[in-house]
Parts: sequence; structure tokens; C-alpha cells
Amino acid sequence: MPDWGSVMAASSPTLHRAVIEHMVRQAVYRRLGKPLPATATAPNPLVVNVSARHCHLTQEAVETLFGKGRQLTVHKWLYQEGQFAAKETLTLIGPRSRVISNLRILGPCRSLNQVELAYTDGIALGFELPLRISGDIKGTLGCMLMGPAGFFEMTEGVIRALRHVHMAPDDAAFYGVKAGEAMKLRIGGPCGIILDNLLTRVDKSFKLEVHIDTDEGNACNLQPGTPCELLK
Amino acid sequence: MPDWGSVMAASSPTLHRAVIEHMVRQAVYRRLGKPLPATATAPNPLVVNVSARHCHLTQEAVETLFGKGRQLTVHKWLYQEGQFAAKETLTLIGPRSRVISNLRILGPCRSLNQVELAYTDGIALGFELPLRISGDIKGTLGCMLMGPAGFFEMTEGVIRALRHVHMAPDDAAFYGVKAGEAMKLRIGGPCGIILDNLLTRVDKSFKLEVHIDTDEGNACNLQPGTPCELLK
Repeated sequence: MPDWGSVMAASSPTLHRAVIEHMVRQAVYRRLGKPLPATATAPNPLVVNVSARHCHLTQEAVETLFGKGRQLTVHKWLYQEGQFAAKETLTLIGPRSRVISNLRILGPCRSLNQVELAYTDGIALGFELPLRISGDIKGTLGCMLMGPAGFFEMTEGVIRALRHVHMAPDDAAFYGVKAGEAMKLRIGGPCGIILDNLLTRVDKSFKLEVHIDTDEGNACNLQPGTPCELLK
Repeated sequence: MPDWGSVMAASSPTLHRAVIEHMVRQAVYRRLGKPLPATATAPNPLVVNVSARHCHLTQEAVETLFGKGRQLTVHKWLYQEGQFAAKETLTLIGPRSRVISNLRILGPCRSLNQVELAYTDGIALGFELPLRISGDIKGTLGCMLMGPAGFFEMTEGVIRALRHVHMAPDDAAFYGVKAGEAMKLRIGGPCGIILDNLLTRVDKSFKLEVHIDTDEGNACNLQPGTPCELLK
């Protein structure tokens, strides 16, 4: 079992295993002079990472919580370019006054405040999390955030993020999908699962990466070496 | 989200929704004089229940923990005939001295002691749960159990139970499977999943019921009304 204590548990601190495997596979087939099998012809390796609960904050929220002029500091770089788990963590106080401690902040700051939890967290907090596409927080419940310098009230934005895959246009072309379409992810192993309704997000800045949450990761016991396959 | 506080959260206190739906479906098609669709011709309704963490104990363990001559008392009857969640709960102390409180005991007593946890629980306890078929506990880690009358040391038996389906021979014939074979379960809804490697267990005393754990139930947000389909 991976230790979900780190924000992106299945991501290696250096190079993700799937990235190395993809390079080795391509090199071996080239060396053997054999045609590449379908997975090896993919423009990019498929990386699947588990996002533990976390939040995205505005600079204003960061300053209210951590002090005037305070900037988020990098704890660990994530797989998507420029994204990081911050050293800063928060205490979340839910609508029924139950608490989640050490909620990790992901940086850099965004234009909206959003907390992404797993259903297991929602049960611990005692309220029903809406399943939403990240960014679509209208009408959702909020919470109180507590930092060393003060409180910040979120009037909305506590969600379970819909499982999704980030990809660049060349990946979208390879898999034959468009932004907003649903894909499937097959995760192998002795308690394997297929995840339906995996939202496709396409941007030329994106690296091919599936984000699932801890409930999904634990349901199938996703490990760095677990075989995964992205399906249209 | 269901409240996993109860041991079998998706099971109704009276009649399971899937059972009622199956009866209504059959009655409606009969009334309309139309041929039954495939799902309605199944000999029994498909019930899918989430098993929250729990343990099975020997009578000896119950007496050590709760007192000489003590019998488990019924808190709630489960879907399988004669099985119940007991009023009695325990404190589990894991191999790293971390604790799970209010661990529910399922009755009646068995010939072996076994604790069934989700991977999320294993992470909280700080150790790696083996994925095992219920009853196959050889070589697994144990734990200490604490009850009001004393401690009971389990030298082995803490597992994640492999997802499984209970069925009677007529169900096995309908689905075309044999005991020990793997089936799949498709769970619908906005975060639907397909569970692979669902172990088939056949006995003439069994009612058709799939048991998944809280990680699996939360990954797909299984609700009483969520459509489920059992596939070979």
C-alpha cells in the first residue's frame, strides 16, 4: 500500500516509473528492429497519480491564512509542469464543526478557492460531497479554513473532483478523443477496476496524467508498478 | 453518500431496494403480458452491499473479550440468512500500536478469528494489508483486540477481504459461473466503476449478494438506487 501521506503518492520524487518504462519499451523495440506495439507507439507515457485531499487557494486567501505578503513555498514538484504541493497546510472546519487537519495546499495560487476531498473524508466530516468538475463549484457547500495567521471563510467550493485525465493535443489525437469527452481507465492487479467517466482535459501545456482520488486508489490498491490502460 | 457508520450501509433495515425492484419488474412485465427482459428473468434480485470494517470471532475470543459465557447479541440482521451485526464492538490495536475503535463484530461466532479492513484502514494503522479470500489467513499479520473484559491476541488474521459474490446454485446456473470463478460487477452512476476479480462463492444457503468494502463503495459512491450489473 502506498503511503497517502504525501499528496501525490504514486508519483516518484524523480522520474515516474511509467515514464521510464515507456522509454525502455521504445528503446528495446527499436534495438530489436521490431515494430512497436500499440502502447509503445503512444506519444507519451501514461502516468496515473492519486491525489490525496488538498485545496487550491487565491493569493488573498493565502495572505489571510498565513500573513500579509506570504507566498506558498514548494514542498514537492508535481508531474504537471509548474504545479507543486506547498509546504503550507491548513486546518479545515466543516459545516458540522468537524475538522480535517494538515490539509495540503497545491500551488501556484489560482483565481478561486476549492477544496477537493474523497467521499471517505466527506463521511468523516458528516456531509454529502458533490461530484464536480474541478472549477465548477457553484452552489456547493463551503467551509472554514484555519491557518497560523487567521481564518478564511469559503462560502462554497468543497467538492469531490471528478476523475480526469490531463493530456496534450498529440495524446488526444493518439487516443481519438476530444476535450470534455469521457474515457475509461483500466487498472490491473488482483483487485483491478475499470473507472468510467474519466473526463478528458486537453491543453498543450498538459502532460499525460490521470488523477484519481484516494478512494479510487485504495479500491484497486494502485501501486507504482500496477499496469494501467487508458481506453476511449 | 451513505453513512458507513452502520456495518452494511447499503442494506435497508427492512427489504433491500433491489429486492423490491426485482419483484415490481417481474409483476409489471407479467401484467403487461410482455416477455421478461434478461435481468428480470434472473432467479433472484442482485443485492450489492458495502461491508464496513468488521471482525469474525470464535466463541472463545468473545468470552475472553466480553466475559465468561457471554453470547453475541443482535444489533441488526444482515441480508445473508442468520448473519448479524452484533451489538458488541471492540478496540483493535495494530502492530504499530495504532488503534481502531468501535470495530463491529459480525455474528454468529465462527471457527476462526478474522479482521476485515479496507486499505484506508490499513494506511491509518500503518501497515500493509494482504488481499485474501475470507478464511485464508495463513501467514498474515495479527493484532491485539481489547474488550471490556480483557485482551485477546490474534496471531494472524488481519486482511482486506477479496471482493466476492454469494450465490445459490440457481444463480450460478443463470450467470453461467462456477464456485471460485471470477466475475465482474458494473456499478453505474456519475462515478461508475467495473470491479474485476469478483470471487464467486456458491452455496445453497446463500442469497445473491455482492460484498464490497468501503473503499470500493466510496470510489463509485454506491447508493441504494445505483444500478448494478453482474457480469461473467
